Amino acid sequence: MRPVVTLLTLGVTDLPRARAFYAALGWRESSQSQESIAFLQGVGTHLALWSRTELAADSEVTHDAGGWGGITVAHNVGSPAEVDAVLTEAVAAGGQLLREGAATPWGGYNGVFADPEGHRWEIAHNPFWPLAEDGTSQLPD
Amino acid sequence: MRPVVTLLTLGVTDLPRARAFYAALGWRESSQSQESIAFLQGVGTHLALWSRTELAADSEVTHDAGGWGGITVAHNVGSPAEVDAVLTEAVAAGGQLLREGAATPWGGYNGVFADPEGHRWEIAHNPFWPLAEDGTSQLPD
Repeated sequence: MRPVVTLLTLGVTDLPRARAFYAALGWRESSQSQESIAFLQGVGTHLALWSRTELAADSEVTHDAGGWGGITVAHNVGSPAEVDAVLTEAVAAGGQLLREGAATPWGGYNGVFADPEGHRWEIAHNPFWPLAEDGTSQLPD
Repeated sequence: MRPVVTLLTLGVTDLPRARAFYAALGWRESSQSQESIAFLQGVGTHLALWSRTELAADSEVTHDAGGWGGITVAHNVGSPAEVDAVLTEAVAAGGQLLREGAATPWGGYNGVFADPEGHRWEIAHNPFWPLAEDGTSQLPD
């Protein structure tokens, strides 16, 4: 296995609402999108939005209790001000602010929002992980 | 917001077991790793392994019912045979095979495993999404 996350599929109960939310945040749909599934172009790793019920079945989940499932997505930006800006943008698009931007014990700055389906995004500035031009972060080896 | 997933944090109950599993699959740890959290180098998007309880608190999750939470991770490879090879590798490393590799209605080939913590990985070959040299997939615009 190569260390590559190709796609992250977010299960949703209201696909038009999820589509509108991610579009407002600047995620662009691929022509691969269909009425029942949206494919959003990412840098390297893409997002899909699909019925949570169908995703559960496709993922061989026998019982979906709803709610969070132990995965949080992080998006790093270049400064604390940019963290605040993305959180503001997410709220304006219909997300829920769960934690305002604040300094972290590890020397960074972050905040958390939930998308309209409750999926958690940590928006972070980590001064020890420089951003490449394409927005990805380089981890020290 | 730029369309970038910087990091995917997988909540775990047994960190040494999760570390060993992803190491066996070829994910390499960054020097950023600490005893309580592992950072695994990805191409563009990285993985973190962290206490599910701490991740829940950090993500402002008030009640974690356990189980799956509506997110499935996909890893694309270059051929059906490579899908089968990764599934075999995952099982050998301590993962659980949930669906054997098989042709899909959309013209690809995929199978599903769960990591030792139950996080779902779809291993897929999608002939319509060519792989770049670094293993990422290009979506048509």
